[in-house]
Amino acid sequence: MLENLKKQVFEANMLLPKHGLVTFTWGNVSGIDRATGYIVIKPSGVEYDVMKQDDMVVVDLEGSVIEGSLNPSSDTATHIELYKAFPNIGGVVHTHSRWATTFAQAGMGIPAFGTTHADYFYGEIPCTRKMTTDEINGAYEKETGTVIIERFAKGSIEADDVPGVVVYSHGPFTWGKDAYNAVHNAVVLEEVAFMAWHNLSLSQGKLVPMQQELLDKHYLRKHGKNAYYGQKK
Amino acid sequence: MLENLKKQVFEANMLLPKHGLVTFTWGNVSGIDRATGYIVIKPSGVEYDVMKQDDMVVVDLEGSVIEGSLNPSSDTATHIELYKAFPNIGGVVHTHSRWATTFAQAGMGIPAFGTTHADYFYGEIPCTRKMTTDEINGAYEKETGTVIIERFAKGSIEADDVPGVVVYSHGPFTWGKDAYNAVHNAVVLEEVAFMAWHNLSLSQGKLVPMQQELLDKHYLRKHGKNAYYGQKK
Amino acid sequence: MLENLKKQVFEANMLLPKHGLVTFTWGNVSGIDRATGYIVIKPSGVEYDVMKQDDMVVVDLEGSVIEGSLNPSSDTATHIELYKAFPNIGGVVHTHSRWATTFAQAGMGIPAFGTTHADYFYGEIPCTRKMTTDEINGAYEKETGTVIIERFAKGSIEADDVPGVVVYSHGPFTWGKDAYNAVHNAVVLEEVAFMAWHNLSLSQGKLVPMQQELLDKHYLRKHGKNAYYGQKK
Amino acid sequence: MLENLKKQVFEANMLLPKHGLVTFTWGNVSGIDRATGYIVIKPSGVEYDVMKQDDMVVVDLEGSVIEGSLNPSSDTATHIELYKAFPNIGGVVHTHSRWATTFAQAGMGIPAFGTTHADYFYGEIPCTRKMTTDEINGAYEKETGTVIIERFAKGSIEADDVPGVVVYSHGPFTWGKDAYNAVHNAVVLEEVAFMAWHNLSLSQGKLVPMQQELLDKHYLRKHGKNAYYGQKK
Repeated sequence: MLENLKKQVFEANMLLPKHGLVTFTWGNVSGIDRATGYIVIKPSGVEYDVMKQDDMVVVDLEGSVIEGSLNPSSDTATHIELYKAFPNIGGVVHTHSRWATTFAQAGMGIPAFGTTHADYFYGEIPCTRKMTTDEINGAYEKETGTVIIERFAKGSIEADDVPGVVVYSHGPFTWGKDAYNAVHNAVVLEEVAFMAWHNLSLSQGKLVPMQQELLDKHYLRKHGKNAYYGQKK
Repeated sequence: MLENLKKQVFEANMLLPKHGLVTFTWGNVSGIDRATGYIVIKPSGVEYDVMKQDDMVVVDLEGSVIEGSLNPSSDTATHIELYKAFPNIGGVVHTHSRWATTFAQAGMGIPAFGTTHADYFYGEIPCTRKMTTDEINGAYEKETGTVIIERFAKGSIEADDVPGVVVYSHGPFTWGKDAYNAVHNAVVLEEVAFMAWHNLSLSQGKLVPMQQELLDKHYLRKHGKNAYYGQKK
Repeated sequence: MLENLKKQVFEANMLLPKHGLVTFTWGNVSGIDRATGYIVIKPSGVEYDVMKQDDMVVVDLEGSVIEGSLNPSSDTATHIELYKAFPNIGGVVHTHSRWATTFAQAGMGIPAFGTTHADYFYGEIPCTRKMTTDEINGAYEKETGTVIIERFAKGSIEADDVPGVVVYSHGPFTWGKDAYNAVHNAVVLEEVAFMAWHNLSLSQGKLVPMQQELLDKHYLRKHGKNAYYGQKK
Repeated sequence: MLENLKKQVFEANMLLPKHGLVTFTWGNVSGIDRATGYIVIKPSGVEYDVMKQDDMVVVDLEGSVIEGSLNPSSDTATHIELYKAFPNIGGVVHTHSRWATTFAQAGMGIPAFGTTHADYFYGEIPCTRKMTTDEINGAYEKETGTVIIERFAKGSIEADDVPGVVVYSHGPFTWGKDAYNAVHNAVVLEEVAFMAWHNLSLSQGKLVPMQQELLDKHYLRKHGKNAYYGQKK
């Protein structure tokens, strides 16, 4: 079932080592079929160089395995929460990529300092709050999703416009219209995290975000109805 | 038409990923044929691993497409301004390379701290000023060229001697006698930006530029009528 | 003799350059056969690209060569001390990997700042004390092992839960259930050292370690009787 | 003539890009035949990917070309001064490698912070003084050698024990018993410069050099009559 989605999710997972975003098995990509509500996700703890398309696991929105002989990623419950809360997204990525994780560990969002950021993220990439002891000791992976969703709601941030987050003391999650696009955003997040770290370091934390007009210009020339970047589709 | 220039521009574009200067499609190279005033430039938003020589787009100095089925780079108007203002240049490069972009985001020029810099850039690589709201909301890409040209004029900087700039909150542009040379300068700019960042960081911004005599010596042993570096041509 | 262990130790040594942990010959991996008390270890100063499985040297727990025509690693006496003191370990790795060595040179342990660390190391990766003149001028390599063991004893740290250390002014040692696992931990240590350095740098040393509950959660979901990460074995 | 030395020097030059020490043509290696006093050196400004063994240039200790159709490296006069002053060395390397050049640009020596450094360099790798206007405008490349030699003499540093230097506002030179060994030391210098930069940065310049006893121990276990590292030759 869902062979095309499995192919996409498998290929998207394989893009993570290609882009240098993962060490060992520290990352996972999923994709959703909105018609059935079924999610295809990487199995837990399987090495990239032996993973096959058939190893992908199909789960439903309650986390029950629908198809597949392996355990799904231990982060599956986080992915599910994101799919439930953000209706337009079709793919989710989690990694421990170095620069984004450095921000997560610092408990800091990634400010928008330039057009590279503005081309993909319409403002600061936020950091979630610390989780409570109850959240950690309870349904931890589900609650990880909950604090992400809470952060976007409290900050009035549109998940479609800021397709990523760093989770406090943990690492980044990104999403997109499909699994490939979610990986694309994971690469961008790592790139802008690299530059933002160096900007914050050199300015001892004092650099202010870019002009709002320039953020608007770059985000909107690539997204929305007046976009003019790239080729007509 | 202009098959040789298309070949040069295509090959020069392909050097960007080879030298690690681009992620995804974040870069573009053009070249100009001064006899016709026609510019050959990378198409907008096309991936490097599928791009072909025939995808290169020919535009005139008003930005009209003369040949090619794809949209030219969204930065075409910036390239055009540079060709108009700097009569000796034959190629232009724009990237979002990590270290140069870090300086652009910081709104800082790259000081000449050593002979690596002096061998190619005859003094600080400047940073443009912030663009105004009108410039951003108007002919943005054209105005990006305008602020570069303004920076060189106000600073009495010769574009032939300092073949690059970082644009405020954006990224670097470099140029050269042809498209290959412009890429060469983009690589050097990234390299000296790396070292300058580390020098500024360790000295907490206090390191002063190199001696003028040493800057003169290195720049002039490779450029101008008394150059003695390399092989006789 | 011990052909299977030699194969493991040889392969584990070859993983060091693959993971970018060694320059030239600056690293060594060993494994122990607990039944005989024999250790298989890399020969001293042999380049990775000419090293063969048959070059592995077999030594006993007194450091006498049991089999092999080459000298064992000059760090053999350190490995032996670790095997004697930590009864559950089956493999030991020493490298001069860049980020871990930076902490060793700083004389600093690597604090647990995030879940990447917590997934493998149950708390701070400690740094040993300075060695005394007598220790340095005496049985130096053996004493290097002694100060590691002392650090774990004085800090009440379980070697099984924190499978690595940085040796003051020197570099990292890691261990694990076998040679492969010890290399795995060497890779993780390098990765968390990278992120911890950037966290300490940006916070000017002020970032505090992660919440204990989150450390517990991540370490224990991968280790011990209630682990649920990965596939059932 | 000197075919074996040409082979060594050619191969040693080709190791520079392999080890990531050069961009474009920014590096050169030479070797000397002490019997004839002839030096074999890389030609000036030739790209590594087209350079052949036959392109190597033979010069004498006055800098006259003895054999070869290309111009020798523009840094030849610096190499010659080093061969004249340091009678035991057989090879010299110059690069603009990133981390060593960062120290050169900062005008700082590289302190001995750990055993990686101590295994190859018996103390701080010094930085030369600023050159005078007369030195820069006179026989610049020869004077570059002179200031290196002056630095070793004034600091009572043995060139055999500290086989490298960073030249103020310029970059590193290293040497060794032959061309290969000089490249080896160039790689080590880059590696220790990386770690020293990060140590100085995190400690805000306050980290003190390693213990003298440990420096002695590591240098002397690899060099001199009581060395015991590696295999018997």
